[in-house]
Amino acid sequence: MARSAAVPEPVLVIGAGMVGASVGCALTEAGFTVHLEDAAPAHARVAASLGAGSAEPVDPATVGLVVVAVPPRPLAGVVAAALRRFPTARVTDVGSVKSRPLQELQAAGVDLARYVGSHPMAGSHRAGPVAADPFLFLDRTWVLCEHPDAAPETVRAVEALVRACRARLVRMDPHEHDAAVARVSHLPHLVAGLVAGSLTEVPLEQLALAGQGVRDVTRIAGGDPRLWEQIITMNADVLAGELAALQHRFDRLRTALDEAGDGEAGSLAAWLEEGRAGTRRIPGKHGGAHVEWARLVVEIPDAPNALGRLFTDIGDAGLNVEDITIEHDPTRRVGYLSLDVEAEVRPTVVALLTEAGWTVETAD
Amino acid sequence: MARSAAVPEPVLVIGAGMVGASVGCALTEAGFTVHLEDAAPAHARVAASLGAGSAEPVDPATVGLVVVAVPPRPLAGVVAAALRRFPTARVTDVGSVKSRPLQELQAAGVDLARYVGSHPMAGSHRAGPVAADPFLFLDRTWVLCEHPDAAPETVRAVEALVRACRARLVRMDPHEHDAAVARVSHLPHLVAGLVAGSLTEVPLEQLALAGQGVRDVTRIAGGDPRLWEQIITMNADVLAGELAALQHRFDRLRTALDEAGDGEAGSLAAWLEEGRAGTRRIPGKHGGAHVEWARLVVEIPDAPNALGRLFTDIGDAGLNVEDITIEHDPTRRVGYLSLDVEAEVRPTVVALLTEAGWTVETAD
Repeated sequence: MARSAAVPEPVLVIGAGMVGASVGCALTEAGFTVHLEDAAPAHARVAASLGAGSAEPVDPATVGLVVVAVPPRPLAGVVAAALRRFPTARVTDVGSVKSRPLQELQAAGVDLARYVGSHPMAGSHRAGPVAADPFLFLDRTWVLCEHPDAAPETVRAVEALVRACRARLVRMDPHEHDAAVARVSHLPHLVAGLVAGSLTEVPLEQLALAGQGVRDVTRIAGGDPRLWEQIITMNADVLAGELAALQHRFDRLRTALDEAGDGEAGSLAAWLEEGRAGTRRIPGKHGGAHVEWARLVVEIPDAPNALGRLFTDIGDAGLNVEDITIEHDPTRRVGYLSLDVEAEVRPTVVALLTEAGWTVETAD
Repeated sequence: MARSAAVPEPVLVIGAGMVGASVGCALTEAGFTVHLEDAAPAHARVAASLGAGSAEPVDPATVGLVVVAVPPRPLAGVVAAALRRFPTARVTDVGSVKSRPLQELQAAGVDLARYVGSHPMAGSHRAGPVAADPFLFLDRTWVLCEHPDAAPETVRAVEALVRACRARLVRMDPHEHDAAVARVSHLPHLVAGLVAGSLTEVPLEQLALAGQGVRDVTRIAGGDPRLWEQIITMNADVLAGELAALQHRFDRLRTALDEAGDGEAGSLAAWLEEGRAGTRRIPGKHGGAHVEWARLVVEIPDAPNALGRLFTDIGDAGLNVEDITIEHDPTRRVGYLSLDVEAEVRPTVVALLTEAGWTVETAD
């Protein structure tokens, strides 16, 4: 049992970008031997210097597990090459789309007993090996996409990888995975691009009125177009269906707006209410069971080191603070810090901070 | 000169919600006498208890300035009533839409010499008088929408109001204002609702894969549908045109996706690149000139009060920190704190924090 639960060593990570380097760091941290390889050798060396493993070559005959962390388009080719180069290794990948690379491998007649795909649901606005983070996957969902030809030993090796990275394993059929990411990741990306693209036509004096809302809606559209073009293209079939459904919802909006202009606001209100209902279906931040978060707002007085003291008190209280927002710059005379805490501990948190001398508001 | 620059007192704020109560707090803080009125008297009393002014009635003959802070639909009626009730007062409002209420007042034959509309571009995820914040408008854009019938004294009174709230005055024609907010606020709200509404049809096991991206894209769709139905309806004519333009961009996406599925990825990449270009046109956070922000990431070691010490050092360095994100919970063993600082001071900041013993990464 103990044997089958271990990650087969040494591990080779191919592609030392943010995700690959983070896998290397997490495995190294967990005590496993990791080698790194990248088409740009400097990336592998930077990742190695950050604790992601060794940039030295590895004996191909000894490799136990290969983790392919390259962009979607070259992915299937790199997986096929890895299966040839490392004749006894198990191979997985961490790509964002799962069906099409599998189809490409199957169409090429590759024996897939030693391969199974996976996808850690963890990202960052940062890119490249310098963004390596051993805790990137901590508590995050990591989807394992089994296929009929995968050997049980291959599946167990990837399960061990997920465990070593301290992620939460979720099993999904490749098609269901691609439907899910189309809806919760790719479609939102495209719609963010829809709004962001429209901003190219807005005069700058009008853009001066932009607030936090449009920034949030468009933020992910700032991602690398070359990478996203590959992701979207690899999942184009699923997305075509999703965009058709979105068109239907868009048509309903335009009809509702026409009616509202004519004094019939009921269908617009209902359309907006559906949106609010949708936001409430998104589960807890780390992909786990939905956790009720409650917001509280602490006044930051104009006193030396007020934020420093507050964080000390927060740490002393042992809080799990999900989300921290500073409403005004800390350099200003007074400000507010918004904290989201688990709803059930909020009364305790308010009591502890109030006792420590802070002015705490709860907005609802 | 000094006389004409002052806010005419006493001020009456009608509508003690988040915005109205914040106006009351800002004016009180600036030394002006403020009274508050709300259809729900308890709201006025809560706002008064938070320093927004007095909930006691005011002698109508003495009122110098009325600030109407009610939802868009009743707005014109409340403004007209205020002009009758307070025969010598100047009247403004803080509504999100400016043309249609003005048209309603003009159509009703109201003498508008003592009225001019305005719109502070400041909001909060919080609502109601408990969210009153004297600094809500600090450095924010406050749009003054003049019309031909407004007396110069009326305009000066509202200019003084904006100054007293420490906002930055921007003058715009009501039509241009409504075009601007349609594009940077109302349209993003509707598109967030488009994605959020589609989530109502996604199975929960697929929603478990949701990350930060879809949360950001859909966040504002969680706003009050009753309020937003009014805002959207009052600006329906402008929005109909914007939605038609968005439909065109959406059609281009669907064509590009079809072509990408057929192996022609060029137009999809170009479409995505337009989105990225749009995100870069959004000016600096407080509506001022575009400021280049640069990100740096500080490692938070597993040591007692590490965050407290870091914020002390940040404060000592006198930093203007725009945006603070904690990548991992402070209760975990190690984490990273992302800071956005003005690009030109980044080298100094990195040097100061490094000297203080922090491990600082710059991701680009």
